[in-house]
Amino acid sequence: MNRTDDLPVTLVDEHAHAWTPRAARARFRAGLTGATAGVAAGHTQANLIAVPADWAYDMLLFCQRNPKPCPVLDVTDAGSWTTPLAAGADLRTDLPRYRVWRDGELADEPTDVLGYWREDLVAFLIGCSFTFEWALSGAGVPLRHIEQGRNVPMYVTSRQCRPAGRLRGPMVVSMRPVPPTRLAAAIRESSLLPAVHGSPVHCGDPSALGIDDLARPDFGDPVTAEPDDIPVFWACGVTPQAAVAASRPPFALTHAPGQMFLTDARDEQYRVA
Amino acid sequence: MNRTDDLPVTLVDEHAHAWTPRAARARFRAGLTGATAGVAAGHTQANLIAVPADWAYDMLLFCQRNPKPCPVLDVTDAGSWTTPLAAGADLRTDLPRYRVWRDGELADEPTDVLGYWREDLVAFLIGCSFTFEWALSGAGVPLRHIEQGRNVPMYVTSRQCRPAGRLRGPMVVSMRPVPPTRLAAAIRESSLLPAVHGSPVHCGDPSALGIDDLARPDFGDPVTAEPDDIPVFWACGVTPQAAVAASRPPFALTHAPGQMFLTDARDEQYRVA
Repeated sequence: MNRTDDLPVTLVDEHAHAWTPRAARARFRAGLTGATAGVAAGHTQANLIAVPADWAYDMLLFCQRNPKPCPVLDVTDAGSWTTPLAAGADLRTDLPRYRVWRDGELADEPTDVLGYWREDLVAFLIGCSFTFEWALSGAGVPLRHIEQGRNVPMYVTSRQCRPAGRLRGPMVVSMRPVPPTRLAAAIRESSLLPAVHGSPVHCGDPSALGIDDLARPDFGDPVTAEPDDIPVFWACGVTPQAAVAASRPPFALTHAPGQMFLTDARDEQYRVA
Repeated sequence: MNRTDDLPVTLVDEHAHAWTPRAARARFRAGLTGATAGVAAGHTQANLIAVPADWAYDMLLFCQRNPKPCPVLDVTDAGSWTTPLAAGADLRTDLPRYRVWRDGELADEPTDVLGYWREDLVAFLIGCSFTFEWALSGAGVPLRHIEQGRNVPMYVTSRQCRPAGRLRGPMVVSMRPVPPTRLAAAIRESSLLPAVHGSPVHCGDPSALGIDDLARPDFGDPVTAEPDDIPVFWACGVTPQAAVAASRPPFALTHAPGQMFLTDARDEQYRVA
């Protein structure tokens, strides 16, 4: 197994904000890996989870019942690796890194899943908070993880999702330290993008979410906050992976946390006002 | 068959805006019928569609792929007639009037569906534009159909929904005439409530949606517009009924157009900012 958990995942490229989504996908298809925060400015990023068709209704219902962590942008027909959100894309190859799950256990972290693909897989593309980072940035909210060249930190919380069929599990959140003077802007800008997690689920004391130590995220990298910064927590599209770990479907494919699918959609398409 | 299509459906009661949702449900359970526009001010109304479990994935996917007409508020487990959105409610009795569909044909319009309920039915509650009428009213937008004591007019459009599995069909819209000076407010207020259809899908010329004559709605009642009013069209939760008619599942239960389910949820819960 190719496991990357213990290595810091750096941003893919300091110039990647100017890439087109198509160019980003081509580089990932060719083998480039790394966190996609900041890639292809203004374009919608997506979490991936693919499950056997027998589990697709439970997954879709789990997403409907937990829309903050699991806002669905697209669902493929069984066996299809294409999506109208990205012309010419191949969901089996175009993400930087994948995770392969068997019976709820992480089995591999390859850079493509051509050898793992099955005809009965239904793929879900789920909104990603990287999408609203450009709106935050435009409103003067600093993005510490990007400034520090790191993946965003993510934490498994003590908050349980509403179960659906055989699927249950805790909510996962991403965290960004926000200066108090920019908190209102961060909340306002993300609220207008409910399809990519929307408003924060919590601001302030991490223990309210059952998080013991911000310096030890469950996924991604720790970030260094400024003294006055308030930790702001958004529901995270890694939540379906936590549901897979808790509920143990026989098989699933996902993205590796922070290494997302780049769609051709523009963030503006998901802005409600 | 108890068919009401040719009769105008009047509002249930001129004082119904002050009812609680629970009281409204009790009156409908006791046999009261009528359009629910204006009932239980500030509480979220919902469209109902229940299909056999075998069709539930297609319906949920149809809703995901068509979120403007079909924003899902809740999905029951198979056979259940309860929802966390309304304490003590019975989805089989608590709507003013239902429609029973067999092979895509309207078979009955009873005031309860106790005799039609099946253990394999999965019920979908879908956001309703009546929910945002209080926000419109608060922003100074007149509601002509309520002023005139009528059901809102609804039209089958020439715009096709994105199919899902065996389900396909046209988008249905509701229409409200809005004075030009209030158009911005109507768009702004509804945009902030994407869970109840959100922003309009069209303003102005009805022929752009394939609507020939505003005076002859497909569902509901015609309303009289003021001379300067602009017709504003919102995606409508009757759309799943049009999909049932077009796609002919063996069985379905729905609400009768304009005669909605009253939830305990407050509109504010669905407001994104």
